[in-house]
Amino acid sequence: MEKKKVGVLLSGCGVFDGAEIHEAVLTLLYLDQKGAHAVCMAPDIPQAHVINHLTQEEIKETRNVLVESARIARGEIKDIKEVRSNDIDALILPGGFGAAKNLSEFAFKGSEGAVNSDVKTLINDMLNAGKPVGALCIAPATVGMAVKDKAPEMTIGKDEQVAGALNAIGVRHKICAVDEIAVDEKNRIVTTPAYMLGPSIKDVAKGIEKVVEKVLSMI
Amino acid sequence: MEKKKVGVLLSGCGVFDGAEIHEAVLTLLYLDQKGAHAVCMAPDIPQAHVINHLTQEEIKETRNVLVESARIARGEIKDIKEVRSNDIDALILPGGFGAAKNLSEFAFKGSEGAVNSDVKTLINDMLNAGKPVGALCIAPATVGMAVKDKAPEMTIGKDEQVAGALNAIGVRHKICAVDEIAVDEKNRIVTTPAYMLGPSIKDVAKGIEKVVEKVLSMI
Repeated sequence: MEKKKVGVLLSGCGVFDGAEIHEAVLTLLYLDQKGAHAVCMAPDIPQAHVINHLTQEEIKETRNVLVESARIARGEIKDIKEVRSNDIDALILPGGFGAAKNLSEFAFKGSEGAVNSDVKTLINDMLNAGKPVGALCIAPATVGMAVKDKAPEMTIGKDEQVAGALNAIGVRHKICAVDEIAVDEKNRIVTTPAYMLGPSIKDVAKGIEKVVEKVLSMI
Repeated sequence: MEKKKVGVLLSGCGVFDGAEIHEAVLTLLYLDQKGAHAVCMAPDIPQAHVINHLTQEEIKETRNVLVESARIARGEIKDIKEVRSNDIDALILPGGFGAAKNLSEFAFKGSEGAVNSDVKTLINDMLNAGKPVGALCIAPATVGMAVKDKAPEMTIGKDEQVAGALNAIGVRHKICAVDEIAVDEKNRIVTTPAYMLGPSIKDVAKGIEKVVEKVLSMI
């Protein structure tokens, strides 16, 4: 039997300006352990900014989201423009600020900000084809903005400000613990708080493994 | 009981010019799952070079090993100069070319090249204090160069060229599968081939979990 193909949409490499590395790697680990094939992808665009992860200060430098994401994918990655919903059976978005800075404008403009058009198209095409979408940490904000017309149910943990911003555009936010998942069976969206709650890698691993399991079960 | 403290020596962020991200994250995962506390560290030095992980070409750019390693550590990282063998109970070095480019000169000059002096001192201090050192992938080359006088037994998988270069300086190389570990009980060194063999993350995870388990058992 052919392996299930699951897109993993990255947004750079590092929690403060890109994809959260632990969440991305754990997604790849559980997909591989459960017999699925990961198709890593990212947009070929400049990062919103570059953060020195030691000092948390902004650096005057330009980095590309696809090129930096390739570090997590060990070079095996596609430009999201080359990926169609027909090519994959499901899609998972790890978190990290990159998911809310590079894939959408959520971190800068809130839930009324724009979503990257290729990201928005792919997420909508997946759900419209009945294919499941998983999202971790802050990435549900970008998914919610992309498909707000579907009144999706999802979690980003329990942060009231983020939850409120999402509820304001029609998302139905559900409070959730780090080892739990929120499942929108109708829309086929699976989310977990991951490092929105933490506190540590063993904790976020539990919710991420459940997202991967549930997403694969929905294919 | 206080948690065992295990140093995790990083060498950047990305397989081709830094620490191998999957290996580093899996080390952090298994340490946390088994109740140990990870103390991430890296040298505060420029990377040997910067590689575009999408094209594998060198980029004319300067990045700092400590600053880039901080991406994997989510900002919780120390300059190796601040860490003494008294501060930790064990030390683990994930692989990636950074371990052989930034922690030593192995990738450029072979086993006769130099080892970063802080790295060399810490590894020797650990072993001389009877504290275990683990190393993954190509990192055993740097460990072997640092402690060649101890005639350490270790594995980098089965690459004949690398094994030969290490044997030439007094390391006793042992062929090992990706889900196995080589244990030098006398010197207290534990190694596994990881991505020197791969092929995929679920495979390297098996050997890395065994290294973490064995290292913790030796404390």
